[in-house]
Amino acid sequence: MKTFELVEGGVTAPCGFRACGVAAGIKYQNRKDLALLVADGPAAVAAVYTTNKVAAAPVQVDRERTRGGVAQAVVVNSGCANACTGATGLANAVEMARLTAEALGVEERLVLVCSTGVIGVNLPMERIAAGVRAASAALSRTGGHDAACAIMTTDTVDKQVAVELEIDGKTVYIGGMCKGSGMIEPNMATMLGFLTTDAAVHPKALDQALRESVELSFNRVVVDGDRSTNDTVILLANGAAGNQTLTPYHPQWQYFVDALTRVCLELGKKMVLDGEGATKFVTVRVKGARTREDAQKAARAVSKSALVKTSWFGIDPNWGRVIAAVGYSGAEVDDQRAQIYYGEICAYDQGRVADKEQLKDMQDVMRKRAFDVTVNLNLGDGDDTVYTCDFSYDYVKINAEYTT
Amino acid sequence: MKTFELVEGGVTAPCGFRACGVAAGIKYQNRKDLALLVADGPAAVAAVYTTNKVAAAPVQVDRERTRGGVAQAVVVNSGCANACTGATGLANAVEMARLTAEALGVEERLVLVCSTGVIGVNLPMERIAAGVRAASAALSRTGGHDAACAIMTTDTVDKQVAVELEIDGKTVYIGGMCKGSGMIEPNMATMLGFLTTDAAVHPKALDQALRESVELSFNRVVVDGDRSTNDTVILLANGAAGNQTLTPYHPQWQYFVDALTRVCLELGKKMVLDGEGATKFVTVRVKGARTREDAQKAARAVSKSALVKTSWFGIDPNWGRVIAAVGYSGAEVDDQRAQIYYGEICAYDQGRVADKEQLKDMQDVMRKRAFDVTVNLNLGDGDDTVYTCDFSYDYVKINAEYTT
Repeated sequence: MKTFELVEGGVTAPCGFRACGVAAGIKYQNRKDLALLVADGPAAVAAVYTTNKVAAAPVQVDRERTRGGVAQAVVVNSGCANACTGATGLANAVEMARLTAEALGVEERLVLVCSTGVIGVNLPMERIAAGVRAASAALSRTGGHDAACAIMTTDTVDKQVAVELEIDGKTVYIGGMCKGSGMIEPNMATMLGFLTTDAAVHPKALDQALRESVELSFNRVVVDGDRSTNDTVILLANGAAGNQTLTPYHPQWQYFVDALTRVCLELGKKMVLDGEGATKFVTVRVKGARTREDAQKAARAVSKSALVKTSWFGIDPNWGRVIAAVGYSGAEVDDQRAQIYYGEICAYDQGRVADKEQLKDMQDVMRKRAFDVTVNLNLGDGDDTVYTCDFSYDYVKINAEYTT
Repeated sequence: MKTFELVEGGVTAPCGFRACGVAAGIKYQNRKDLALLVADGPAAVAAVYTTNKVAAAPVQVDRERTRGGVAQAVVVNSGCANACTGATGLANAVEMARLTAEALGVEERLVLVCSTGVIGVNLPMERIAAGVRAASAALSRTGGHDAACAIMTTDTVDKQVAVELEIDGKTVYIGGMCKGSGMIEPNMATMLGFLTTDAAVHPKALDQALRESVELSFNRVVVDGDRSTNDTVILLANGAAGNQTLTPYHPQWQYFVDALTRVCLELGKKMVLDGEGATKFVTVRVKGARTREDAQKAARAVSKSALVKTSWFGIDPNWGRVIAAVGYSGAEVDDQRAQIYYGEICAYDQGRVADKEQLKDMQDVMRKRAFDVTVNLNLGDGDDTVYTCDFSYDYVKINAEYTT
């Protein structure tokens, strides 16, 4: 993949988008908890949603609305997931979008709605209504940061990324923001992602680009195909840059997809770094697997293992837990051919174990904030990478105290 | 299932078995770490082993030896798993059995060998040899407790169970001991189980009885079909009670299988109660599922979720995390039909959420050392139960500090 220049900003880096974040008092007072993201006119839209069989009300609304391939605004609240809320929840999600459409003067069917927070609680609709009014007045060309703050739940930092590229001689931006930080059982910690671009992209091609990018980014850090009740990634493309409409037949198509993937991957990495209680950012690479699917299975099993994650927290190069996770991952493995590395240092080499002196070197690797664990199965060409974090006391603390 | 009278003791409760545990200095000094279990003569044997593709050396040896259906002795060490140790490890496992056969004067092929502890370290064979000699001299009719202590690793208590029953008018005992306590990612925390009975049982029938019992017990607490590199359950039946040889055609066959299941289930529950850092014993029951398989998937997903487990630790009836886990488990679920209970109190009833006052009652339920979480999916007759524990600060501490 080509590298791209990262630039300042997030969803308002591309031309023709405004955003904001306001404090609507949904769960806490004086904390931004309602975000609005609006394109100056109808834009092409693509989205991917949770595969959880229990899908929140806003997901049900958006699934329907993004089918048309056009949208103009997204309203998002934190503090309440509006999940498992039945007919009332569905009505509230529709109403939240209607209020937004009214305040903005855009067609109701072009407004999408997202929620994140506690499950099983109804949206406080009066506060939502007041929040939507305040937000529509606060929209700004530089409001990306406020919006990124408003969508946070247990996140400790806002997460924004933007890149600049050139297509058909025109300057094009892709920007994004996301929330999500529960990296241990990420399938239950809601991830919301919002992406914008001023490139002109055909709606069907936009869907393909988003799916490819998400597969190589969020699906490599959010560790599992399983999802929370609310997971959503939405991409809006408004065409303001004036390029020839992008499709897979455009000569710069792959360049655009790579740039979009880069934005998603950087956002994904920020989620890992902000993992609940995380002290380490770990890149788990499995190579030499029989197939790429095997490499992926193995890398995911290692990344999800609580025993492996606690060993990272404990600065313990416990490769035995790594190979045991590979062993139950479903991937082919022969422990007499496998090799395991911490950084560049080989902990386990086809049946031979590292010396005590090397143990100290491996611990030095693990003392860094970010390090790599590489497994070479020496069985084929399969290669895949997952980005993850460790498992600390604070993970337990955060999740034991995050109350219903 | 009938209930059975539990009696004192473990593997030496049945007649014709001797056992002991000695300190061989394998990893620590002055701690029992080598156990021996011996039948007075050749006995019928059945065993189940890990499904992990990386199987430890002793597992490879035993798989071969138990195929014949006859065994007489089992030698077990803690402190070293003898896994990922290649040809040397295999030779050491065979040698450990040979030393035992020699010391006991029994046929080498009738000796089984088990190891548990750190992966990737070779057995200290001189200490093993001395330990085997000491153990063979220490064998006793009342040595079950010492043996149960010697197989412990991060276990905080030894685990023994025995029951008494009557078959063909003869008094029969079934006894057992086990080790294992890592209930969060149990697929990596080695579980060893040793069962004895003085009933006469046909070897093929013994295998069937063990598989049925394990499925309803250890496989309901050890939460996943995935296994560590060393998991092993061995059952010896020496026929000393003098009953008619049991087969599925014996009128008391099911009674025997139920009793065996009871022993396994009680041992399994002791493992959960000793879960690393566990403060709660939680029975997760899913009923009303479309099928029993669905019920099992859902119960396992709830039991394995780190977010659910931390909420139990935090005395937080966070049913939202429960239903989200059911939602990604693969089981059919309709959140507008599902109900979730903590003890007898309904937290979520087909779209309706419990009152704030009931929250307090649910927290009272959760303050107990043991409580039930029940999910009724209201979709069919599928019913299954999993026994599990919470996830505390101490889990992280124990596993971050358990060093390679």
